[in-house]
Order: sequence, then C-alpha cells, then structure tokens
Amino acid sequence: MLGDWLGPKAAALETRGLTRRLRPRVAGEDLIDLAGNDYLGLTHDPRVIEAAADALRIWGTGSTASRLVSGTTSLHEELEDELAAYAGQESALLFSSGYLANLGVVTALGGPGTLLVSDEHVHASLIDAGRLARSRVEVVPHNDVDAMSKVLAERNEQYAVMLTESVFSVLSDEAPLADLAAAARAHDAVLLVDEAHGLGVTGDGHGSVHAAGQAGLDHVIVTMTLSKAMASQGGVVLGPAVLREHLINRSRPFIYDTALNPAACAAALAALRVLQSEPDRPAAIHRATAHLADAFDVPHPAGPVVSLPMPGPHQTVRAADLCRADGVRVGSFRPPSVPDNISRLRLTANAGLTSNDLDRAAEVIAAAVAQVY
Amino acid sequence: MLGDWLGPKAAALETRGLTRRLRPRVAGEDLIDLAGNDYLGLTHDPRVIEAAADALRIWGTGSTASRLVSGTTSLHEELEDELAAYAGQESALLFSSGYLANLGVVTALGGPGTLLVSDEHVHASLIDAGRLARSRVEVVPHNDVDAMSKVLAERNEQYAVMLTESVFSVLSDEAPLADLAAAARAHDAVLLVDEAHGLGVTGDGHGSVHAAGQAGLDHVIVTMTLSKAMASQGGVVLGPAVLREHLINRSRPFIYDTALNPAACAAALAALRVLQSEPDRPAAIHRATAHLADAFDVPHPAGPVVSLPMPGPHQTVRAADLCRADGVRVGSFRPPSVPDNISRLRLTANAGLTSNDLDRAAEVIAAAVAQVY
Repeated sequence: MLGDWLGPKAAALETRGLTRRLRPRVAGEDLIDLAGNDYLGLTHDPRVIEAAADALRIWGTGSTASRLVSGTTSLHEELEDELAAYAGQESALLFSSGYLANLGVVTALGGPGTLLVSDEHVHASLIDAGRLARSRVEVVPHNDVDAMSKVLAERNEQYAVMLTESVFSVLSDEAPLADLAAAARAHDAVLLVDEAHGLGVTGDGHGSVHAAGQAGLDHVIVTMTLSKAMASQGGVVLGPAVLREHLINRSRPFIYDTALNPAACAAALAALRVLQSEPDRPAAIHRATAHLADAFDVPHPAGPVVSLPMPGPHQTVRAADLCRADGVRVGSFRPPSVPDNISRLRLTANAGLTSNDLDRAAEVIAAAVAQVY
Repeated sequence: MLGDWLGPKAAALETRGLTRRLRPRVAGEDLIDLAGNDYLGLTHDPRVIEAAADALRIWGTGSTASRLVSGTTSLHEELEDELAAYAGQESALLFSSGYLANLGVVTALGGPGTLLVSDEHVHASLIDAGRLARSRVEVVPHNDVDAMSKVLAERNEQYAVMLTESVFSVLSDEAPLADLAAAARAHDAVLLVDEAHGLGVTGDGHGSVHAAGQAGLDHVIVTMTLSKAMASQGGVVLGPAVLREHLINRSRPFIYDTALNPAACAAALAALRVLQSEPDRPAAIHRATAHLADAFDVPHPAGPVVSLPMPGPHQTVRAADLCRADGVRVGSFRPPSVPDNISRLRLTANAGLTSNDLDRAAEVIAAAVAQVY
C-alpha cells in the first residue's frame, strides 16, 4: 500500500536529482562548522554542558508530563523569567520546540475573527501556523510595510496579527520592526516577530525587537527557538503576561504536549547566563559574518548568516560536498527551502570561530565554488 | 491591545472556575507520583541519566541544526534502528516531539487526494494534524470498525489514512487493532496507530501493534512519543522504509525543525536498552494498574492509566489538591481534556512503584474523593 503510493513519488524526485538524504555526523569529527546554528558557540561550552548534566541528576531525563499536569519544574519558570527579562518582555512561556511555539501562539490568537497578515519570507512553522489557525491569511511582499498596512486597514476582522521575523533565515536580512510596530499600533493589530535568528545575535544579544525599542509593549509578541544561539532545544513565546495566561489556557500545542525536558531548560539557562556574563559574544558573530562576507564580496548581513547564491541545486550540493571533503561544513539550501527559488550555500557564523578558521573556510569554499561553476 | 483582547477571555474563564494554572515542581520533593507518564520508571535511572550526560559531553547540548542540514548524528540513526527493531518495524524517523511526529506524518500523507478517518478519541496532535493536512476528515465513533469501514468504502479519494491510538490516554482502553488493520487492507487504506501509551507498556513492551501481529506491514504506521515510557523527549514515526524516505523529503515539521538534541536521543536509547535487558518491567506497570483498579473497584485497564470518574471539574481539582497535600500527585483531567466531558482523576502506573506506595496512594486518594463528594 505505502510502497505503491509513495514509491513512484520517490522515483520522481530521484529522477529530478532532488532526493534529500540524511548524512549523520560521527563523534569527534574535526570540521570547521559553518552549517549549524550554534551562533554563540555555546553548544560545547563546559558550563552549559555541566548545567545540563546537573539537571539530569536532579530532575531526571524527562519532564514526565505536560506542563499543566506535572511537567512544570521550578527550572522551567526560572528560565522563563530570565528569558523575559533579557528580552525586555513581561513574561515568557516555553514550548518543546520553536515550531510548536509558533503553532501554539498563532492558533491561540487565530480563528474566524482574526486576520493573519504574513510576510512572504516567514518560516515554515509560521506558514503552517496560519494554515492551522482557521483564520483568513493574507501574504504580502517581503518587508513591505505599506502592503501590510493596506491589508490591515481594509480588513473586516476585529483582530489582526502580523507575522514576520526579525532576521530571516536564509537571506539574513532584517525586518523594518519599528515601522511594522507603528503600523500595528495604527491599525489596532498585534505584531508577532520570530526572533529565531535575532535573540542572542542582534541588538547586542537582546534581539532586534529590543534594539528597535519595541520590547515590552502590549501589541508586540516575540517567539524564538532555544536550539540556535541558546545552544539547546525548545521554543518560547515572549510578551505580556495576559498572553502567557491565554496560552496556558488555550494553546493546544502547549496544553497537549510533554513539557520541555529539564536538562534542555538548564542548558538554555546556562547559555543565557554565559551570554550575560560575556556580553561581547554577539559582536564576535558579526565579526565572523563580516569576515566571510568580505571574502566573497557580498554585503554584510544583519544576522548571523552569509548567503552565497549558486547557479543551481546540483552545483550547490556538489560545492557543499567538496567543502566537506576539505574539512568545512556549509549548508546547501535548495528550493523549496529558499524564499526566491535561488539555491545557495548558507554559511553560519558562530562566536567561537577564529580568524584562522574563517580564512581557511573562505579558501576552501572559494575553491569549491570555482570548481562547480 | 492584547490586554483588551485577551483580558475579558481570562476573566470569563476565571468566573467559570476553569482557569488553568501551572504549579511548578520543586527539586527533591518527596511525593508518590501517579500523575507523570514515566511508565517504566526510568526517568531517574542512573543508567539512563549517565548515558544522557555522556552524550552531552560528546555531542554538546544541542543538535545545532535541522536533520537535513547537520542535525543528524550517528546517535539519531542508532536510536532509529533500535526503536524500529524493537517495534518490529522496517524503519523509524525521529522528530523533536510526539506532537510534531503526528503532524509530520499526517500532513505528508494528506492533501485533497487523501481521506482521513479519525477515531473520535484521538489525541489533540492527531486532530490538529487532520486540520493541517488539507484533507477531508471524517470522525467516527470510538473504536467503531464498521463505521470506519463504511466511510472508507464510500470515499472518492484514491488514498485513505485511518487515525487511531493503540491505548487511549484518558480511558486507557485499547483499539481493536487487528480488525482495524484488516479493514485498512480490505479498503486499500493505511492504518496509523499512535502508540504513545502502548509501546513500552503493552505487548510485553513491544506495543499493541506488535502484539496484534500488525507490525512491519506495508499498510500500518506507528507513531509514538519518547517522553513517556522512554523517559526522554521527542517523537518517532515507525513504518516501511519508503515512508521514512517520503517524510525526509516531504514532511515540513521534519525538514524545518531543529533535530532532537543528542542527549535526549541517548536517554531514550538507554531506556530502550534497559527495557530489553529487563523485559519484566512492563508487567510491573500492569501489576500497579491492577492494584489501583482493584482498590477503586474499576475494571483493569489495557494501558498504564486508571481513570476515576468524578462528579465535576471543581471536585476533581479539589481532590487532586487534597491528594498532593497528603503526599500523592494525581492528574486532574477536566473538559476539554477528556473525551466524554466527564472530569476524572487520572492515575498513571509506573514500574518503579512498590506495593506499599500503591497502598498508601490508594488510601490517600480514597480519603480525598470521599471528602469532595
């Protein structure tokens, strides 16, 4: 049954050269990593590791239940409080992934009485959230504040939520957050900003919403993952306390999901504390992206990613393979994982990379790209 | 904005006594826990804890990327292989939560050409999956094979997926899996079984699908969470290799989500190995449920949960509070978290509870229930 159904689809992908395959990392491999999203370089930090190991011994390996049953520990609330304070928000609520945080907040605010207006470049989780919310969804051109305002002004729905990201995943450009927040206020709407690639990176670490002076407001919501700069796993929704209470009572992906495990909470909390005690770490990310951008003569990105357009998907994959063979891991992004159908090498910066690492990586990538053109 | 929008909703819930609040556990508290889903009692097992701690040191605290970029480690594939073998399935694919595993597989099979037929008691994640899948969804009465068959026979869609659970969360009753699988085969459909409360518990641990002789077939899919019997976090889809390949290429919650962190993989893998080396553990779960069921004169459940109907939501919450004050944590489930609008105390068994624990718990619960009636 499944063979007859799915087999031909697999064969068709194979013919077009678009089959995706998993390539497991092995322990102890020695590559320069420009593919992962460990932006602050804290995933292997001994302080973060030992905090997580301590939590395993205190709380066990799992949270054992949903948050409302018995899955909430004091560690969850400690992390929520410190994340909220760092981001300049009144409150925070953890989810077990960033994907579920986006689904959880959008569906809890959505419904027939709520219009969703989405930037065309938002992450898959926000697109899926819009589909699941049973709201009318309008998609507007990338970073087009006027288009968003027009849709908001012409709506019949009482409520509206604008969906965007502070720093976009592939192009690493920034949204015009102050203008968007002003538009939200003018049109009695809520602005939801996914800071997956912002918090810990932009605004001296405090994120783009904070840097734009839009944190802690009654009409601005921030979501983020803990699996990138925070070196862990899980997601969080940051905003007014009334929102947190609403999510606890109404958000299905919050209510019906096992709580984030305590060790992941402890790792994120330790990473956040390292970031606060070493506030220059975000600057190291931007030095690294500038270094890479200069090497390839592309503009400096707002966020932690340098994106190199490639002629096509095959060349992208081949270039990434050549890089790996030469000791450098880079991301190869092809349609549909790019917003504009242009395949790209995606180079992520992390605060732990040395100038030598970056020189070596740039050399290897340049040679690989030259070889596939 | 959010205050005006959500404040009145919060006040309305409060008036009806239905506000849900989080109650954090504190470290080192000494309660008999009949609320968590640590069915095999492995969350605090030193072997599981140390395996997770080792993984933190080898792999770091996060997986750093999505599975297709660089988030897959050899540990992910090791866990997938061993879970598949244990469940009698050809292959397995991890997700970062059970919720996302259900969303991921149903949406990857859904669409206008696929009918979804769902048991009315399935978990919120399968209901949301149906909403997200853009398929026609038909909901049929609980465990009604004839009703499912009728809907399958009368469909216009080429494909169909039947959604059920092996053991249901609240009532802990079992689905008629052999009959459902036969109906799937007769009507050229796929049977998807969520074994969140089955694998590790029923069928000597191998799950209800395995026990019913329906594992490893071309028309049967199993999903499960790793956050219950497996003492960790994450979710998994088990089935034919062609399904795994399809999900890798088409499942948005797989493709666009950060991979499960390595320590969670290691904990689940260690728990699975303990289960295999101590195959009598599942029997201890059933001894505990029998003990509790006998104490309250309710039928022995198929799964790990003993469910005590209560007169209403207020009494349920109050009884659970009384139990906690007396050293026993139980689940209090109210609408909409129950399938039939009847509020309940939900008592979960775990293999680590002693006969003394169970006697003491039964005594405390009986006193609490008597006090609120």
